[in-house]
Amino acid sequence: MEIKAGKLLSNIDSPDDLKKIPKEQLHQVCDELRQYIIDVVSVHGGHFAASLGVVELSVALHYIFNTPYDQLVWDVGHQAYGHKILTGRRDSFPSNRKYKGLSGFPNRSESDYDTFGVGHSSTSISAALGMAMASYSKGEKDRQHIAVIGDGAMTAGLAFEAMNHAGSTKSNILIILNDNCMSIDPNVGALKEYLTDITTSHTYNKVKDDVWNLLGKLPVGKHFSRSMAQKLTDGLKGMLSSSANLFEALNLRYFGPIDGHNISKLVDTLHDLKDIPGPKILHIKTVKGKGYELAEKDQTKWHAPGLFDKITGEIVKKKFDIPQPPKYQDVFGYTMIELAEKNESIMGVTPAMPSGSSLKYMMEKMPDRAFDVGICEQHAVTLSAGLATQGMRVFCNVYSTFMQRAYDMVIHDVAIQNLPVVFCLDRAGLVGEDGATHHGCYDIAYMRCIPNMIISAPMNERELRNLMYTAQLPTTVSPFVIRYPRGEGVMPEWKTPFESLEIGKGRKLKDGQHIAILSFGHPGNFAAAAIRDVKAEGINPAHYDMRFVKPIDEALLHEVFAKFSKIITIEDGTVVGGFGTAVLEFMNQQGYHAEVKIMGIPDRLVEHGTPRELYNEIGLNAQAVAEVLREWMKEMKIVTTQFQ
Amino acid sequence: MEIKAGKLLSNIDSPDDLKKIPKEQLHQVCDELRQYIIDVVSVHGGHFAASLGVVELSVALHYIFNTPYDQLVWDVGHQAYGHKILTGRRDSFPSNRKYKGLSGFPNRSESDYDTFGVGHSSTSISAALGMAMASYSKGEKDRQHIAVIGDGAMTAGLAFEAMNHAGSTKSNILIILNDNCMSIDPNVGALKEYLTDITTSHTYNKVKDDVWNLLGKLPVGKHFSRSMAQKLTDGLKGMLSSSANLFEALNLRYFGPIDGHNISKLVDTLHDLKDIPGPKILHIKTVKGKGYELAEKDQTKWHAPGLFDKITGEIVKKKFDIPQPPKYQDVFGYTMIELAEKNESIMGVTPAMPSGSSLKYMMEKMPDRAFDVGICEQHAVTLSAGLATQGMRVFCNVYSTFMQRAYDMVIHDVAIQNLPVVFCLDRAGLVGEDGATHHGCYDIAYMRCIPNMIISAPMNERELRNLMYTAQLPTTVSPFVIRYPRGEGVMPEWKTPFESLEIGKGRKLKDGQHIAILSFGHPGNFAAAAIRDVKAEGINPAHYDMRFVKPIDEALLHEVFAKFSKIITIEDGTVVGGFGTAVLEFMNQQGYHAEVKIMGIPDRLVEHGTPRELYNEIGLNAQAVAEVLREWMKEMKIVTTQFQ
Repeated sequence: MEIKAGKLLSNIDSPDDLKKIPKEQLHQVCDELRQYIIDVVSVHGGHFAASLGVVELSVALHYIFNTPYDQLVWDVGHQAYGHKILTGRRDSFPSNRKYKGLSGFPNRSESDYDTFGVGHSSTSISAALGMAMASYSKGEKDRQHIAVIGDGAMTAGLAFEAMNHAGSTKSNILIILNDNCMSIDPNVGALKEYLTDITTSHTYNKVKDDVWNLLGKLPVGKHFSRSMAQKLTDGLKGMLSSSANLFEALNLRYFGPIDGHNISKLVDTLHDLKDIPGPKILHIKTVKGKGYELAEKDQTKWHAPGLFDKITGEIVKKKFDIPQPPKYQDVFGYTMIELAEKNESIMGVTPAMPSGSSLKYMMEKMPDRAFDVGICEQHAVTLSAGLATQGMRVFCNVYSTFMQRAYDMVIHDVAIQNLPVVFCLDRAGLVGEDGATHHGCYDIAYMRCIPNMIISAPMNERELRNLMYTAQLPTTVSPFVIRYPRGEGVMPEWKTPFESLEIGKGRKLKDGQHIAILSFGHPGNFAAAAIRDVKAEGINPAHYDMRFVKPIDEALLHEVFAKFSKIITIEDGTVVGGFGTAVLEFMNQQGYHAEVKIMGIPDRLVEHGTPRELYNEIGLNAQAVAEVLREWMKEMKIVTTQFQ
Repeated sequence: MEIKAGKLLSNIDSPDDLKKIPKEQLHQVCDELRQYIIDVVSVHGGHFAASLGVVELSVALHYIFNTPYDQLVWDVGHQAYGHKILTGRRDSFPSNRKYKGLSGFPNRSESDYDTFGVGHSSTSISAALGMAMASYSKGEKDRQHIAVIGDGAMTAGLAFEAMNHAGSTKSNILIILNDNCMSIDPNVGALKEYLTDITTSHTYNKVKDDVWNLLGKLPVGKHFSRSMAQKLTDGLKGMLSSSANLFEALNLRYFGPIDGHNISKLVDTLHDLKDIPGPKILHIKTVKGKGYELAEKDQTKWHAPGLFDKITGEIVKKKFDIPQPPKYQDVFGYTMIELAEKNESIMGVTPAMPSGSSLKYMMEKMPDRAFDVGICEQHAVTLSAGLATQGMRVFCNVYSTFMQRAYDMVIHDVAIQNLPVVFCLDRAGLVGEDGATHHGCYDIAYMRCIPNMIISAPMNERELRNLMYTAQLPTTVSPFVIRYPRGEGVMPEWKTPFESLEIGKGRKLKDGQHIAILSFGHPGNFAAAAIRDVKAEGINPAHYDMRFVKPIDEALLHEVFAKFSKIITIEDGTVVGGFGTAVLEFMNQQGYHAEVKIMGIPDRLVEHGTPRELYNEIGLNAQAVAEVLREWMKEMKIVTTQFQ
């Protein structure tokens, strides 16, 4: 079934077309844009509620500003669907987030209107400020630079650093604070309360007007002299001008809050702001999921709901005849509760991913012991270090890609002090549709070079549980990384009894001849599948699940290198400096010579698609392992017996 | 000459001793403490001005609080000399920053009073909050948690993330904002202006009192009804209570500003604050270098002046008979100006290290094109990315150890978009006296795993200039890392003409027999010295300066592996995943077999000392290279001819 855009929208091929539409009809453009997003996302999937919340803003921005000459930067970028549809990508929008299709985020290689590639949050102010400073230096004084950032993204330190700098420049930057009280999960922290405060109870600007008004009416007379009145007014001016508002304290002119769904008001306000030079911030209030009632009501669920019936709101779920393995995330989430019930010192920390990581189960059950700290990976790690100094056993769950934000804190606050914080690196490996900005490719390499670290990866649910169990034992005294991928594992019967693992010890899964496969983490299952596939061809490699890349199991490696001269290593991380490389380092140190085929994520960007498509593209699956086995057997001219 | 502490100080072996001194005599303790710091640092070296600025605060904190039960976290930590002297380390203080001596920063392994190891800035609030949350969870309600943080450190995003979290908790945390308007260089940004504002022109709390006072006197009558008065008062309360102050906006109770050199006032204030539960902030004004006039006047110079004559203030400089090579930093600084004069698109960015990096020369000469953005490594990198989208060629100079703070921005904002930002990683390798928190050990490994990166290191001044020249050429279209160590290079005649280098190409420095040395960066000079040393013994290895670790020069490596089966690699970075490992990866891919001795920084923490002492300890110098050469020659039983 072809999805058709509405009458006005179907004629908008660029912002120039939009600008031709009379202002009175913009609400219809908004309606059609909203409907088109609902139509496409319900059938093709993608992020949902965020883009619905900025339909009016997207229309107003392209209506008022001269994009792409004026530079528009969308923070995070999963709310940029309206922007994409309005900037020449309406008809290709159904390919959104699909393999070889449109990116789910703004992407400089996709369109001139996408000024800055995003995916991680809170970069927009810095990027737009850089653009504004470049324009200033080139003398392009008419050029506008707009950063659209959510109140959730505003809690990240990077946004604060950028505001602090912006406020001390003369740059032509407009920050639009899209305040919807939500990240993927509801926002947390003092800033959120503050924004609610200035928005609701006091209606800051109105009160300000009232106060000035009343001060003008002060009855000067015998008991209240002119000089007292002057002193009062001056005192207030002093207090208010310098500190009236958090943003004004940072020297950003503050406007708002205004209703972000009132297209007419938005257009008028942006029109006015266009002519105000210097750094400024417009605070708009929006509703995530606006216009789709179910999404408005349960914004976390509808952040990225998958496919759904747009009429009934029923979310499409695959049905299975046999029990399916659980997501690694849920194994983490439920295991946290089990462990925390036994060990009082356990705490859980997540930077804004309670649902995604499944820490929410513990947060619901033990609200004093599991926290969402907001989009603050840096703080999450140093806070965990602080907790660890007091003997708490903290499981700090951060997506592999987001841990890049807290790299210094891992080194400086945790590893150098050898504090036994447990880092659960969720979404390691290729994450799929979110693409290059979100793949967890680098963590093995960037963690492995840090002294004191223990770095592990489970091959399945039981292993994840046992690694978590081991990490919190009193005998574990160093930082402990457990990395695992997004999505399903392999064991429907996952709730196995806990077993303590020896740190730095792998396990031999099977003996074999001629070739050994060393796997790290979930891709061990690719190896196991390959071994099953080639069995009938008489190929019988050994398989070792190394479990730990640091410390690496040297005894096991001696066994392997003593017996095998052809070795496959497999991991779902970069081949530069990762697990395979660790094996090479061992081999070199010990003077072994062997042919090692390192299978992993290649040293180039991998774009978006389903994990299956992507792993197929890069040759990292059972089939690819089987191919290497077959080639090597052929090369070695070993006659194998075909079994039927 | 033995340095003696004053009468009172010489009897203070712990905070308990301090607490026995009557409050009236504390000013004398402060005088003696200040004098002792001056006496020791002038003779033994170290950070200077920061500790002088917090003499009164250090005394007051240990006088009032029950340390170490109460947890005291010093941000950055180079201001903690007074703290160390008061907590049992007076007599060992002359060993400060020396090999095997006291650490220049708080260090958990050194004392129970050092609650959290530091070195990098802005971690204290997160750490203290973690401690406070742990105490809260254990029911230790009497326990205090104090973070002492400078206004410079306050600009880093991590501090903001932590305040945003703290303000939404009931934690017993006291943040002391030590406001001296300085980092190492003067502070920048809007926050600095704001703090000056609330401190000077308005004296916030006093005005607040005046205003409430005047409001109480409002003459209610015919023209100004009771309800108008009420409305005015309520309106003001609403405005002020929620937004009166940047910190109160974050729900931190704000106290101050008070004079941080008034010991009596400090003691009284801290005494009062001790009994106020919940998150709060005390703003104190101090003078960096307080009590040593020259340091007060030139705080940047006296941040860490080296040895000096405490009477005359003359800083001890080594004198040389022959011209000495310049510091790499100065070669960077002067070369920036030369390049920027030729290429209008060049800009320079530093996060708070204008003096340390020598970007200050360009900042003085071209203030519109070189910026200090404050202690904001994350913002520095993403800002650079924004500038690069507009065609600017940005040299973003960040110390190797601090680049860890901006790791995600390097990947997400620069590398994924393949923007040609130039990263000058200063102070790569072992930095010396600053120790484990500051060594630039990891950058080769953590950069090498990122796609699109060009990673280089100059062996000398000429190479640095040529790499900088190459990095800014229009033909260079990818992110470009240039890493170099702290301190002197090797070429007194450094101002050589610019030469374009081929990216990914190394150079053969000399032919040789039996053994090849592959070097990356400055340690190539260790190799060259070793080769000179062993020449007389008839040992004659080849030497290749690889220049680039990514892309690595494969043609050159083919040449090496075709000819040599014993290879030494040398680098001033970790041996895990670094340059030597890159050579192993190549060797494995190409099916070469050779014995490779990887010389670099071992996979363990290296503490403080002079670089010479530390490189000697880890076996990374000319002597160590010569030893390997000799051993291998012996092993190969090659008869060498001894030259005399």
